[in-house]
Amino acid sequence: MVKLIKKHSQAKGLQPGSVVFIGQKKIDKPRFRVIDYTAVELRETEAESLQECLSYKDTPTISWINIDGLHDVEVIKKIGAHYGIHPLILEDIANTGQRPKVEIGDDSVFLSLKMLYVEADGGNLISEQFSCVFGRNFIISFQERVGDVFDPVRERLRRSVPRIRFMTTDYLAYTLFDAIVDHYFVVLEELAVRIESLEDVLIENPSTNDLAAIHDLKRQLIIMRKATWPLREVGGGLEKTDTDLIESTTRPYMRDVYEHAIQVIDTVETFRDMVTGLLDIYLTSVSNRMNEVMKVLTIIATIFIPLGFLAGVYGMNFDTGISPYNMPELGLRYGYILFWVLVVLISGGLLVFFRKKKWI
Amino acid sequence: MVKLIKKHSQAKGLQPGSVVFIGQKKIDKPRFRVIDYTAVELRETEAESLQECLSYKDTPTISWINIDGLHDVEVIKKIGAHYGIHPLILEDIANTGQRPKVEIGDDSVFLSLKMLYVEADGGNLISEQFSCVFGRNFIISFQERVGDVFDPVRERLRRSVPRIRFMTTDYLAYTLFDAIVDHYFVVLEELAVRIESLEDVLIENPSTNDLAAIHDLKRQLIIMRKATWPLREVGGGLEKTDTDLIESTTRPYMRDVYEHAIQVIDTVETFRDMVTGLLDIYLTSVSNRMNEVMKVLTIIATIFIPLGFLAGVYGMNFDTGISPYNMPELGLRYGYILFWVLVVLISGGLLVFFRKKKWI
Amino acid sequence: MVKLIKKHSQAKGLQPGSVVFIGQKKIDKPRFRVIDYTAVELRETEAESLQECLSYKDTPTISWINIDGLHDVEVIKKIGAHYGIHPLILEDIANTGQRPKVEIGDDSVFLSLKMLYVEADGGNLISEQFSCVFGRNFIISFQERVGDVFDPVRERLRRSVPRIRFMTTDYLAYTLFDAIVDHYFVVLEELAVRIESLEDVLIENPSTNDLAAIHDLKRQLIIMRKATWPLREVGGGLEKTDTDLIESTTRPYMRDVYEHAIQVIDTVETFRDMVTGLLDIYLTSVSNRMNEVMKVLTIIATIFIPLGFLAGVYGMNFDTGISPYNMPELGLRYGYILFWVLVVLISGGLLVFFRKKKWI
Amino acid sequence: MVKLIKKHSQAKGLQPGSVVFIGQKKIDKPRFRVIDYTAVELRETEAESLQECLSYKDTPTISWINIDGLHDVEVIKKIGAHYGIHPLILEDIANTGQRPKVEIGDDSVFLSLKMLYVEADGGNLISEQFSCVFGRNFIISFQERVGDVFDPVRERLRRSVPRIRFMTTDYLAYTLFDAIVDHYFVVLEELAVRIESLEDVLIENPSTNDLAAIHDLKRQLIIMRKATWPLREVGGGLEKTDTDLIESTTRPYMRDVYEHAIQVIDTVETFRDMVTGLLDIYLTSVSNRMNEVMKVLTIIATIFIPLGFLAGVYGMNFDTGISPYNMPELGLRYGYILFWVLVVLISGGLLVFFRKKKWI
Amino acid sequence: MVKLIKKHSQAKGLQPGSVVFIGQKKIDKPRFRVIDYTAVELRETEAESLQECLSYKDTPTISWINIDGLHDVEVIKKIGAHYGIHPLILEDIANTGQRPKVEIGDDSVFLSLKMLYVEADGGNLISEQFSCVFGRNFIISFQERVGDVFDPVRERLRRSVPRIRFMTTDYLAYTLFDAIVDHYFVVLEELAVRIESLEDVLIENPSTNDLAAIHDLKRQLIIMRKATWPLREVGGGLEKTDTDLIESTTRPYMRDVYEHAIQVIDTVETFRDMVTGLLDIYLTSVSNRMNEVMKVLTIIATIFIPLGFLAGVYGMNFDTGISPYNMPELGLRYGYILFWVLVVLISGGLLVFFRKKKWI
Repeated sequence: MVKLIKKHSQAKGLQPGSVVFIGQKKIDKPRFRVIDYTAVELRETEAESLQECLSYKDTPTISWINIDGLHDVEVIKKIGAHYGIHPLILEDIANTGQRPKVEIGDDSVFLSLKMLYVEADGGNLISEQFSCVFGRNFIISFQERVGDVFDPVRERLRRSVPRIRFMTTDYLAYTLFDAIVDHYFVVLEELAVRIESLEDVLIENPSTNDLAAIHDLKRQLIIMRKATWPLREVGGGLEKTDTDLIESTTRPYMRDVYEHAIQVIDTVETFRDMVTGLLDIYLTSVSNRMNEVMKVLTIIATIFIPLGFLAGVYGMNFDTGISPYNMPELGLRYGYILFWVLVVLISGGLLVFFRKKKWI
Repeated sequence: MVKLIKKHSQAKGLQPGSVVFIGQKKIDKPRFRVIDYTAVELRETEAESLQECLSYKDTPTISWINIDGLHDVEVIKKIGAHYGIHPLILEDIANTGQRPKVEIGDDSVFLSLKMLYVEADGGNLISEQFSCVFGRNFIISFQERVGDVFDPVRERLRRSVPRIRFMTTDYLAYTLFDAIVDHYFVVLEELAVRIESLEDVLIENPSTNDLAAIHDLKRQLIIMRKATWPLREVGGGLEKTDTDLIESTTRPYMRDVYEHAIQVIDTVETFRDMVTGLLDIYLTSVSNRMNEVMKVLTIIATIFIPLGFLAGVYGMNFDTGISPYNMPELGLRYGYILFWVLVVLISGGLLVFFRKKKWI
Repeated sequence: MVKLIKKHSQAKGLQPGSVVFIGQKKIDKPRFRVIDYTAVELRETEAESLQECLSYKDTPTISWINIDGLHDVEVIKKIGAHYGIHPLILEDIANTGQRPKVEIGDDSVFLSLKMLYVEADGGNLISEQFSCVFGRNFIISFQERVGDVFDPVRERLRRSVPRIRFMTTDYLAYTLFDAIVDHYFVVLEELAVRIESLEDVLIENPSTNDLAAIHDLKRQLIIMRKATWPLREVGGGLEKTDTDLIESTTRPYMRDVYEHAIQVIDTVETFRDMVTGLLDIYLTSVSNRMNEVMKVLTIIATIFIPLGFLAGVYGMNFDTGISPYNMPELGLRYGYILFWVLVVLISGGLLVFFRKKKWI
Repeated sequence: MVKLIKKHSQAKGLQPGSVVFIGQKKIDKPRFRVIDYTAVELRETEAESLQECLSYKDTPTISWINIDGLHDVEVIKKIGAHYGIHPLILEDIANTGQRPKVEIGDDSVFLSLKMLYVEADGGNLISEQFSCVFGRNFIISFQERVGDVFDPVRERLRRSVPRIRFMTTDYLAYTLFDAIVDHYFVVLEELAVRIESLEDVLIENPSTNDLAAIHDLKRQLIIMRKATWPLREVGGGLEKTDTDLIESTTRPYMRDVYEHAIQVIDTVETFRDMVTGLLDIYLTSVSNRMNEVMKVLTIIATIFIPLGFLAGVYGMNFDTGISPYNMPELGLRYGYILFWVLVVLISGGLLVFFRKKKWI
Repeated sequence: MVKLIKKHSQAKGLQPGSVVFIGQKKIDKPRFRVIDYTAVELRETEAESLQECLSYKDTPTISWINIDGLHDVEVIKKIGAHYGIHPLILEDIANTGQRPKVEIGDDSVFLSLKMLYVEADGGNLISEQFSCVFGRNFIISFQERVGDVFDPVRERLRRSVPRIRFMTTDYLAYTLFDAIVDHYFVVLEELAVRIESLEDVLIENPSTNDLAAIHDLKRQLIIMRKATWPLREVGGGLEKTDTDLIESTTRPYMRDVYEHAIQVIDTVETFRDMVTGLLDIYLTSVSNRMNEVMKVLTIIATIFIPLGFLAGVYGMNFDTGISPYNMPELGLRYGYILFWVLVVLISGGLLVFFRKKKWI
């Protein structure tokens, strides 16, 4: 859970706007990938060092610089200085606990989001910070580690599928945003499968582990909610801003991704409702099982404790020789058989009573 | 439950605006029905292919093209291209997980809703996507499968009942919207009947199955809520928009259907409250039954365990020959009768005690 | 509960604006009462047929036409046509499931409310639809059955108490609205008495029936809430509208009734809180009683099961003749007395233990 | 609880604006106190009758007329007529169930609040209605009974502490409002003490009475909430109104009292949270005690029921003479000692088992 | 808990704007520290008396006067008079129960916040009031005691790290605000660690103390919420105000701290959710343990009570000499062995039954 709140204390007491990496270091060395393209050609390079990337600034081509790994703050500072990004934004980029947000400046737009993945085989929900800054002809994206949800986007760029649209950086930024939100649906599907299978188990045969599973789901929904809830403002902000960095043709797309985000938020809330429902089922099934246990105890005890008393009575040692009033049953010819008849009658009567109460 | 979230992953990574069918294929082949009418005549045809439908575009008559079956995206793409519908809207039409919404364009209005049906005999709630696009003289509606709630509308068109109003497509669209919302009331009535009968059962004689029934109702209300909650925005959007595609005479009707939608939403919330109440009753009845079981056990055990001890005492083998202090009761003439008197006194006393505690 | 949602299905598929009675027929024949007055005189008649009522339209006097019984839709249609009321409003009048609302037209104002009554002797809450339409010199009110909360209003009209104010129909409409809201307080008082007496019972001596009583109260508050919640909008609408059908002198009164409505809504919410509190008390008392039962069982069983074992021991048949090690106690002179001493010590010790645990 | 909703039925059916006393009569005869002052002198009188008070209207001095006792509506009507107060406001003054509100007229401002007191020794929360109307040079305040929270205000008036400020009636009204809100903090402190001591008791040694105490606290918070919640609107209304009856120098003070009211509301909500937490603790402690009881039962029964069986076995009468297979243990030299060894082993083993389960 | 609501009663009845210390006295004597600086030099002094501090007012340097200790109201009054601070603001400074707020005056801005610390070793959350007033060239801050979170700020001032920014008092005020909000993250981390470790304990091995720990966490979150919730308004107020005391270059920083505050609030809400989840786990584990206990009891009792009955039967004394029907088993050669066979069969059967029910 500590992951819910990043080690902010690392940055405590520093001057505001200080670029400090807050989070867990996930790869050894930052990795730089550049896709540089015009309407007619596309060049894809993996840069050795940051220095290589900086040269793209003054070309008229559109350059998408992707940086994996945030722990080397010098990289962030240098690129920030080169592209004139506000120190507070650099601080946000390096802080992996940043709340999703959009910040619209004069020459650039800053967008901070969370990429979510589910680990295979019922694993955890992983949240990775994605930030990007885009201006007229550049877009710089930052991720915590190698591996993302953007391969289809790159593929479309390479295949030159509607190249003309990609000619503006806002559309490319939108595409990245859209790819992230689309992946939320994959996460939701996985969670839906988990909720559904847990539901089946709970109604049929609940066990103590299920409580941990419910609690786990709850926490994953809390993480999901933290990542998606601010998208209302982000999406709304992108759609309604009056910056000319977002072209009017891109706006319907921004609205579309906003609507998808709303749908994700709605679904997360619905899932929260359902998980609460699962807890109710679990608790009720615990009560029902307790009932079951108590019924077995009660049936057995209610039948055999009186019978035990009866057997005890005929095990008493009252002196039958003294008077005919002392335990005359013991001297009866069919005394023992009558005893068993009594046993059968008593237990039969109780069984009928229990049946009437619908306990058996 | 997986149905709550459509297989969005099918569309993952595709270029935005790609028309991809998201959902379950429910019929084999799309079916095309056209109702083409003017103030004086009406022609109803079942088209063999999409091609036939396209010809209606340039006629001055009003054409209602209804398409059952969304899985053939080529159909959607072609008709979209023919009528100049924005790709993002085509994407929404093909995505059966789309949140209800209205989108008002320059020459057309897009409306996406959910039709809800209840399966007979306590069956599930079925949600089917309905979308329609209408312009000046056409209205194209899309459904997931054959069968809908619009037969009375068709009947009125045929019978030419207030024909004059149907002369605008916005009124026709309103009529369809109204028919869908009206059907929500049918669904609510069915749910009300179920809640009511479950309530009667729960207060009289709750069983373990009822928990599943309550959970089922809860899920149906979640589905219903997902379908109806966005109608606030849809209805408000239709009433307040300033497009001239919706005539001022139609607006009071739009307001009317909006009010009905609010009423549906209110009722769904009320039902949610009531189902929560049902769960409370169920849980309390489980507790009460546990109490009942424990009381029976306690009464029987409390009476017979002490009596068993007493019988045990007189079954002891202390040597009565050694001294008169050893179990003199065994040698009494009426010892055994006194024993039974004691048994009756003890159990009588306990019964009085239980009666005073109102346990019996 | 079905009453929470009126048989809307009766109207399903009909053309919008169709006037269809939705609800239960509560009287045989509509009843027409007309109060027609000027500043100087007042004439009160019970009309035989609708026809008689229609003639009041063109007189300069103020006419209050009250119609009891909504099932005869012909009446509603005719009067609607005569007074030029919009078909959608006629539809609302005939639909007893209509949500309270106000609709302000050019020449008339439509107001739909619920009258609430409590049946005597702990009976149900009855909700009756009241609608009225008023224009410059007429006010037409519709009720489901004979009997209402307006007798004091009629009395004031007859006694000519501030006649001058009644000279505008908006003031009369306000008076009716006010009479209905005032009656809500009577209902609230009755519910308060019920909550209070249930509370006393629950704290002193809860029984299983109380659960049904709590549930009943909950449902009555749900009905009450459905009837009163929309009054925020209705009251606000009447106060803030700019129609000249509501005079500036009447507005403070509209504001006053609006404030009373807010107070009713507040109180309903408070009552809902309190009923939830009652359920908590009930559930806790069920748990407490279970605790009580278990304590009795535990005390008795904990004392007598070990004693039973002890008695069992001395009932064993080890051969005392073989060796002095076999059950020497049986041969002691005071063996039996020592046994009872042991019994007293054990049970005494346990009683002290239970006392320390505050179980007895 | 009936006190939560005043006997509104007394006023039912009356003409709106009728001044009817709604509430409980708390003193025999209204009491009139007048403080009349200018910058240089102050005269304090207890008037015999209302008539005396009326004469202050036309003097240039500032007159604060305080009336204790609302049941004599004639007094309210007369003073209302004399000072030209709107009948609806007179109605509100006489209705002790009035929701706190502010009403800003042309020549006067009406303010209705609740004074809250806690009875000593864990007693109830008492709510008393306070209303005041102030104009340029008069302020008339109405209370239900003698005794209020204004003595320090009077003292400051007498001591002529910043007299100059008191020269406007709005500042005096503010001072009264402030005194009432200040007293809310006293009430909150008392409630805080109660919550805290209940909390200590609950964690250490909960008893059945505590449930009633929790419920009591809950109700007092409901009353407190009803009295304070509307202060948001009242305070906001007073601060933001544009009437010139409230001078610009008084506005920061109005804002200050508004902020205090917000703080009271916040604290009430926090207390509600805490009382809900208390109920959770109580319920859990009930469960824990049940657990405790069941553990004792289970430990004793689990040890002694098997031992009892063992003793029973050796109390059986199988004929040892017939064959050496029948109960040979009975004939062993150390049979009885072996039996006890077995008893010790079994109970020891079970105790180890319970210890491992952490039950003992 | 009493700390949640300060002893406001101390100030009760006093004239508004009276500067009264409300809170606990935490140090003996106020301590005055002054940092006085220009772009080129910085002078840090610990003043002996207030008098020394006052002289800084008319110098062109920026002076940060920090006062530790609020109980000496004379100090507050004097400095207030000297710097022309409104009495109501002085009242707020002295009242340690003040809700966080910002007040923007003509020549100065007042800011009231809470500093939060967690005591080491699972200790309590400490809330300390911080207020500051700043004008063009002065900033006066008030704390309850010596020791704060501003040492890094002082260090930066001394080291002259971006001195130029510190040349405006609004930036210095922002830095203090930022330091306080940054420290909230430290507190949140500590709470996160506590929640996480409690979670682990609860799932593995819950004990009764955990309830107290959960309750403790809940209260700390309530305190945290009270301290942070108003920051929405404070942050928004600082960002959006149009005073020229806050320079346009400082505004992005104000926005940044506002966003951090939102993040704190979000996290507090998430933690509240999680603590509620902990309570659910605790309650469920209590139920599960009860189940466990009951199962052991039921298994043992269900096996041994019937066996005890069987042993009792063969301990009966029916006279075998009278007839062959009386307990013939006792005379069988293998009777005793058959008895044990029966015992094994019965207990084996029951064990299989329990295994099938998954109780063992």
